[in-house]
This record gives sequence, C-alpha cells and structure tokens, in this order.
Amino acid sequence: MVSKTIRVAIQGERGSFSEEAVLKLLGEIAQVHSCRYFEDVFRLVVSGETDACLIPIENSLTGSIHRNYDLIRRHELRINQEVYLKIEHNLIVIPGVKLEDVRTVISHPVALGQCERFFEKHPKLQKESSYDTSGSVRDLIESGSRDVAAIASRRAAEIYGGEILLSGIQDNQENFTRFVLLSKRLDPLDGANKTSIVFSFKNSAGALFKSLSVFALRDIDLTKIESRPIHGRPWEYLFYLDFLGSTKEPRVKNALNHLREITEFLEIMGCYPRDESVEKKGM
Amino acid sequence: MVSKTIRVAIQGERGSFSEEAVLKLLGEIAQVHSCRYFEDVFRLVVSGETDACLIPIENSLTGSIHRNYDLIRRHELRINQEVYLKIEHNLIVIPGVKLEDVRTVISHPVALGQCERFFEKHPKLQKESSYDTSGSVRDLIESGSRDVAAIASRRAAEIYGGEILLSGIQDNQENFTRFVLLSKRLDPLDGANKTSIVFSFKNSAGALFKSLSVFALRDIDLTKIESRPIHGRPWEYLFYLDFLGSTKEPRVKNALNHLREITEFLEIMGCYPRDESVEKKGM
Repeated sequence: MVSKTIRVAIQGERGSFSEEAVLKLLGEIAQVHSCRYFEDVFRLVVSGETDACLIPIENSLTGSIHRNYDLIRRHELRINQEVYLKIEHNLIVIPGVKLEDVRTVISHPVALGQCERFFEKHPKLQKESSYDTSGSVRDLIESGSRDVAAIASRRAAEIYGGEILLSGIQDNQENFTRFVLLSKRLDPLDGANKTSIVFSFKNSAGALFKSLSVFALRDIDLTKIESRPIHGRPWEYLFYLDFLGSTKEPRVKNALNHLREITEFLEIMGCYPRDESVEKKGM
Repeated sequence: MVSKTIRVAIQGERGSFSEEAVLKLLGEIAQVHSCRYFEDVFRLVVSGETDACLIPIENSLTGSIHRNYDLIRRHELRINQEVYLKIEHNLIVIPGVKLEDVRTVISHPVALGQCERFFEKHPKLQKESSYDTSGSVRDLIESGSRDVAAIASRRAAEIYGGEILLSGIQDNQENFTRFVLLSKRLDPLDGANKTSIVFSFKNSAGALFKSLSVFALRDIDLTKIESRPIHGRPWEYLFYLDFLGSTKEPRVKNALNHLREITEFLEIMGCYPRDESVEKKGM
C-alpha cells in the first residue's frame, strides 16, 4: 500500500550521468523526470510535481558549478543527500561495427574534449558535436550509421542498444562529479553528519580568518572551502564551506551562532549524510 | 630595429574569447598562435615556439578550471599577468538577414546554454551545436544561409563579416572569465602586487587554519581561496590561494617561509600585477 517511489527531476535525458547518479543513490525506487534546462528541474520541485531533484555541483577537473549553487539559493531548497560518480566515457557503436569502420565520432564537445588523447592516437577520426552524450547514442542507433561512433556512458549504451567498443577512454581517470539531492525538506535525514553553508561579510579584510576560527576553536573539520567574487559588488565575496558535523550537535549550533556574529548573511544549504565512498577526512 | 612582437599561444580560433583577452591585455604587439588543444598551447611555450600563452582559469558562473591549473603545474610555467574579460554573447547573421527570417541558431552548447532565456522568448528557434563559437560564425558566413544565426563574440562578427542582430543575449550579465598569461619567466614584472600559490598538507586536520594564520598575522589580504580534493589520495587536498603582495616584499617572504614549515609541498604559480579593472580588495 505504501508507495516508496521518489520522483526526482534531473537535467538531461535517459542514460545521462545525472540519471546514473540518481540510480546509484536511490536505486529502483527513483522515478526520474528528465528536463532540458536546470531552471525547469528546480521548478518541478518548487511546484511539488516531483519530490526532489538531483544536480551536479562540482567536478574534480572543472571545479564547482557556481551557477547551480545560485539556483539552489534562489529556490530555497535544501541538500538532503550527496553522491559522487566517476565519469567514464565509452566509445559506442551499432553492434558488430569495428573500430576500423568508424570515420566520425559524435558527442557533447565537453566529452570530446575529455578524450583528447584517444583522438591523438586515432588521428583519422573526425569529431562531430551534439547536444548531449546519451542523445548522441540514441541518434546513432536510430540512424543505423555503421561508420559513426558516439561517446557516452555505459548506461546510455545499455538503454539504446549500443555496443561498447572501448571503455574508459577519457584522458584523466580521476574524473568525478559530486551530485546533490535537493528538496523542500528542512529536517536532516538520520545519519546526517556533513553540513554545507554559504556566507559573506560586508567588510571582509581579515574576516575570513575569523570565520574559520569559529570552526577551528571547536575542532570542527572542514571538507571544502571556496571563495567566489561577487561581480558588480567589487569588495565582496561569497564563501562556500562544507564541514563534518550535524546542525543538531551543540558544538555545530554554537559555531554557527558565532559565525552569525561576524557575517553579513549566512545560509545553511543543507545537513546530510556524507558519501562515505569518498572517505574524505577534514582539512 | 627592435621587434616588440610577443608571440602568444591560445586555445581556440580567431575571434575566440581567448584572442579577445590577449588583445585586451597586450594590444597590437601580440601575435596570436591558435591551437586546438590546451596541451598544444603549453607545448608551444615550453619548446620556445611562442613567448607565452594565455589560458582561462576561472569563470564567475562555472568556477575554477582545475584542469588548466593542473597544466600550469605540470609544465612549470609562471603566471606573469592576469586579465578579466566580460563574456558577452551576440546573435550574429549574414548582413541584411532579419530576426523573423532565422529558424536555426548554431553555437557551442555552453554558449547556447548561457542564453536559455533568449530561447524561451523565441520558442520557434531551433538550436544546433557546433565545435566553437567563432567557428560557427565563420561556417555561417561561408554557407550563405539566410535562415541561420550564430551566437558568438563581437570580435567573431567583425572578423568574419557577420552582422550583430542582438547583443548581450546571455542570461547572466555578470559573466566574467579570468585569463592568465604564462611564460618561463620567473622574475615578476614591475608593478607585480599579487601572488598565486598552491600547496598541500600530509595530515590536514587543522592545518588549513594554521596556514591562513601565516597571512592573517602579517596583515596580508587574500583574494581567493579554494580547496580541491585530490582523488586517489582520499585524505589530501590541494589549496589554491591568491593574495595581495609581491614575493619581493619581506613580509611575503616571511609568510611563505612560515607556510613551508607546515606544508608538504608549496609552489609559487606566479607574482604579477593584478587586473585593477576588477578592483577587488582582500577578504
């Protein structure tokens, strides 16, 4: 009688890395709603059409995705969970096609750019850009082209019936993306042991050091710190901070109250169980 | 007799934002060498075929480009200068073509994605992805298509003879990219007043706070701080730090010596005159 389905909005099609991240985090109870734009992803959660959304917020090669941090803040959603996904690119063809038959390789330009060494080793292959990775597999299979390959995830190959000719062809094997699951739920899940905050100061010289002392004095370990200039307000910065601890712990409550004394604004983006598969200690 | 030409390698074609940044920084003395891949950009400087290279390292919406930080470190080049460029997207057509004639808009998917609101206002326009922004203008002009527009920089329109139908169509008006000029030159230029460093600790709990005290105790203002997890080494982080001061100042020398006492490794990425047009104060 109890429906355990969780409706999750993502940006991207079936077979995208976002979909893979939802399945890694929630398994089969997830019902994925694909959106073309990130703005729509958030709108579905705000309107209640989905229970949550999952978006990428940082990548080990390309850094934090500030635009998605902005969207989280603008829509006042909370981070309830996080998950890291290893980004693996595969060369996918119509079953039976051999590497020597392939003339053209299609994918999103970012994916093509992450496989530069593969193309250096195969200089005869022409690159062609497409709107997204999994869509390029779908288009390839529909077209029936036997001289074309696509670069995408393993899941995209499975969904559309492509064959993986070569796997893990990305230049850098340490390519990870961190995704967060967001909803209107304010209360942390059981086991929440990590907190993400964002804050700023009005007059900021020396203020960063004071703000870190708030945590250092209470032996609270940080797992991320990042400053971001606020353009249009040339003397101001936003700070993103992740630390190990729950907002239910007294020392964390005290630290956040202390931080409020010196910040101009402070927002808690969420308190959630950390992805233990990454096993980060504090800094 | 004296040739003042400076040969600068960039990733991207004529009309790219990198070329625009070179011209903003160096003006007409720059002789730009276009490369397809970032790896090649660095190789040209290392081999001495160019005097320097200019690469993007952070964007106000998409964050730091860690991959380019890695390339700087791997090739042991130094930052000699920095420049911020406002990223403006324009709708470009063959001269005489009107907006109502346009059916398809081509550009790099990242540029298309930064103009979502424009496409929401013009729902009949079809998007088509291409390898880069300026190349899409060149292809458009060569094709003679009167029902196609491209999205690219003002400079791309000028170079290839396109007409700007609409300017500044990006969603976010505060879209800036920071570029750095790199060479083998170790000695800071005259007027250098900003320094970029990268460092890490072996056992990092509490170490970040100590490392910031090195600067706070000497009233040295920071303009950027960012942690980056080192994947594959789960308890380690890299830290990127920019501060206001020259490596020729005694207090900066002392701070760096102090920092060496607590870091596992510390590299000075460069000491250079900061781009005053941005007018950042410390944090």
